[in-house]
Amino acid sequence: MTLQLPDMTLSANPLLIQTPAVLNIGIDGLNDSVLANGGSLTRLQWQPPGNADPALAWQLARLMVDPRIAAANAQATQRIINARPMWEDVALRADGVWPELKGSRLLLHAGPPVGWGEMCGPMHGAMIGAVLHEGWADTPERARKMLAEGEVEFAQCHDFSAVGPMTGIISASMPLIQVRDATHGNVAYSNINEGIGRCLRFGANGPDVLQRLKWIETVLAPVLKAAVRHEFDQTGGIDLKAIQSQALLMGDEVHSRNAASTSLFFMTLAVPLAAANGHAPPQDHVHQTLDFVARNSQFFLNFAMVSCKAIMDAAHGIDFSTVVTATARNGTQTGLRVSGMGKQWFSAPSAMPQGLFFPGFKQADACPDIGDSAITETAGFGGCSFAASPALTLLAGGSVDDAVRYSREMYEITVTRNPALSLPALDFAGAPCGIDVRKVVDTGIRPVVTTGIAHKEAGIGQIGAGIVRIPMEGYVAALSAIAQAFLKD
Amino acid sequence: MTLQLPDMTLSANPLLIQTPAVLNIGIDGLNDSVLANGGSLTRLQWQPPGNADPALAWQLARLMVDPRIAAANAQATQRIINARPMWEDVALRADGVWPELKGSRLLLHAGPPVGWGEMCGPMHGAMIGAVLHEGWADTPERARKMLAEGEVEFAQCHDFSAVGPMTGIISASMPLIQVRDATHGNVAYSNINEGIGRCLRFGANGPDVLQRLKWIETVLAPVLKAAVRHEFDQTGGIDLKAIQSQALLMGDEVHSRNAASTSLFFMTLAVPLAAANGHAPPQDHVHQTLDFVARNSQFFLNFAMVSCKAIMDAAHGIDFSTVVTATARNGTQTGLRVSGMGKQWFSAPSAMPQGLFFPGFKQADACPDIGDSAITETAGFGGCSFAASPALTLLAGGSVDDAVRYSREMYEITVTRNPALSLPALDFAGAPCGIDVRKVVDTGIRPVVTTGIAHKEAGIGQIGAGIVRIPMEGYVAALSAIAQAFLKD
Repeated sequence: MTLQLPDMTLSANPLLIQTPAVLNIGIDGLNDSVLANGGSLTRLQWQPPGNADPALAWQLARLMVDPRIAAANAQATQRIINARPMWEDVALRADGVWPELKGSRLLLHAGPPVGWGEMCGPMHGAMIGAVLHEGWADTPERARKMLAEGEVEFAQCHDFSAVGPMTGIISASMPLIQVRDATHGNVAYSNINEGIGRCLRFGANGPDVLQRLKWIETVLAPVLKAAVRHEFDQTGGIDLKAIQSQALLMGDEVHSRNAASTSLFFMTLAVPLAAANGHAPPQDHVHQTLDFVARNSQFFLNFAMVSCKAIMDAAHGIDFSTVVTATARNGTQTGLRVSGMGKQWFSAPSAMPQGLFFPGFKQADACPDIGDSAITETAGFGGCSFAASPALTLLAGGSVDDAVRYSREMYEITVTRNPALSLPALDFAGAPCGIDVRKVVDTGIRPVVTTGIAHKEAGIGQIGAGIVRIPMEGYVAALSAIAQAFLKD
Repeated sequence: MTLQLPDMTLSANPLLIQTPAVLNIGIDGLNDSVLANGGSLTRLQWQPPGNADPALAWQLARLMVDPRIAAANAQATQRIINARPMWEDVALRADGVWPELKGSRLLLHAGPPVGWGEMCGPMHGAMIGAVLHEGWADTPERARKMLAEGEVEFAQCHDFSAVGPMTGIISASMPLIQVRDATHGNVAYSNINEGIGRCLRFGANGPDVLQRLKWIETVLAPVLKAAVRHEFDQTGGIDLKAIQSQALLMGDEVHSRNAASTSLFFMTLAVPLAAANGHAPPQDHVHQTLDFVARNSQFFLNFAMVSCKAIMDAAHGIDFSTVVTATARNGTQTGLRVSGMGKQWFSAPSAMPQGLFFPGFKQADACPDIGDSAITETAGFGGCSFAASPALTLLAGGSVDDAVRYSREMYEITVTRNPALSLPALDFAGAPCGIDVRKVVDTGIRPVVTTGIAHKEAGIGQIGAGIVRIPMEGYVAALSAIAQAFLKD
């Protein structure tokens, strides 16, 4: 365990001390009396290892020095570092990729499993919207009844190698971004960003929202497909990690800020679309698409997510690895998957994001943490790379120093640094790579996620942006399961 | 004058000192003896005010407290802050804008005046290329003879409200970027960026270079014109300061790094070009243009320069203002213009840029500082905003801390801060605004310029990137002239 000592050079110099100066490690009960006597107090964020559970602490101690885990985690992070996610195609219908969705009433959603009764407001709203979009019901009331009465099945995006932001709904007719990790061969999918304002991903389901979903199917997706297929034929596709890596030098942390990545992505899109070829989409559709992307600096988010999903799937399934390979929230629960622990979710109630709210909204309006987008943190972006994005503090609150501190903190709970992802503000150090369940429980430091904040009621949309910490309980549950699986005596 | 004291808290604590600790203000002769005795030495960059000239120091003291200057400089910087440079048009031929160029043999170049005999290698090469390009001679030898024998006239870009990077040659047939300061009404011009590799601006003049100039005239410029005229009709043009300001949040200092600004610019270009309209250029020309811009992350440089020229021209000509409104280098001399001092150039021999060199090149190959691009520093970008661009240190050398320090230093010699230009690494402080001749001479701090480094021989091109300081002599000459003009007794 590493304790991070603040710089106490001056106050620790006995010649300079006029009043009691106390270094308090983790025992908050003493604080008031020190302060009441005019003393200075330095608090260290520390708690006993193993989440203060002696049995877990003992298991943790054994797991921390297990050479099988060290080797497995080295392998997992090397696969993260070596992954080369290439955008290769747009699948025009999800049920063309996944036959399970064809003719069935199955909706994919973000996060770990959740039943209709436990879903948050935005998830309800988005489910209703998807039922209307697929034509399974013709009014929101009938859609709600159908959902409540169990006539629709639910599954997790992650079980289909897919990710979706916020509610993360994917239904049969929706087009998918298709990305292949060119190094390891696995394929991942995401839905397409709907832009700003009222969106299905925030639980809106009015006619404007459904109309935009149709436009995505009939205009945006075919144009994106034309661009990427042209590039695929020329160069093998569009290298998303190259865009993400450049964007870290350009003020994005590539989760809640994608201004640079979207504009770099835009260039890779517009050039092939301008290439004269017989298969070009109608010029008006190209114009609509480029205009839509240029006006939405978060358009790249879904590409960042699917890129990270491809990266993290390549690191999944390594025996004895304690590296987290998925962090996903459904607005009720936040779930983790661990490389060496198969498809099991380790879940805990979602935390509440803190940050800045748009005018007219407040903390009490916020929905608990939601969306598959924390796959970006899992792969080293977002909160792990917050130091790259001072500009995000303008949107999400906090200071530039805070942003740098978050990244430094994440080094404490990760296996290594990713040399392909440089953080300029840290003198180009590699981004934190491979969140290790053991280190989270050992240090008590929970991963930081940069996130949009949804209104807790369906259909209102984004009301702010900020940060959230992933709950400790999921890591503790994962560690217990790891101990049970890996420690035989 | 402000002395910047380094943090000496620890070494100044007498209890901790084991060896002599010396704070040396400006007297370097003592250093060796202190160090020879194992002492620690802190050197302050300080020199007596007035460049160590007592008469100048006395004049400076009077100028520093002159209320007329304070008022004039406040007005000049307010005009810098208020300026709104809009890209409105591309003029397809320079001689269509400036009749002086029609039918004459007149070439514009970067920097203050310079005769053929004093020109550096790249300037010679570019002049020869321009003569060939205009068809005034048909071999490089004949072009050189014509130039050497006085058959071609030279003028400065700045006298035509224009700027050009490196050699900065503009000839009659070249197309021009046209920018209007929508606040104050003045118009500025620049030539168009030739991309990377062998270029006229670095003094190359082979068939490939001349062919690219023709391509710029016949393909690139008409496509740019179609895009900007479409935008002009819709929105009044393309707001260059908005792009520059965003780019400061995205890792550019918008002189030697324009990766973000070029990609933001690309979006403003591609969307109108995709708009179906009767006046669209041939699709193949659009494709060639977008491909060219997407491959050249410095394409925006010329737009940044002409934007800054429009901004600084708006601040020129204010009686009693000591704000520098142009900083321009011709590879031999570096010249300054001052707001209250008309068109007079205050010049000194160009300094030698220091930095990182491309493989195979070294410091001894470098051409002295060259180009009109220091107009960007004059307007608060480049070296003034180095803190915004840690990534530039990868290209130009130095550390991220150096980059931040350069910006902090520039606050010492500027009138105010520009609230429209935020530097994230300095907690979003406004960029240094309005270099004040008085403060440069008073502090001895010379403006820092981020710059490409040209080979000293014609035609080889860029051999590195780095920084350079503008010579003090120009500021001293300007201050003397200011004293003579403003102080009556």
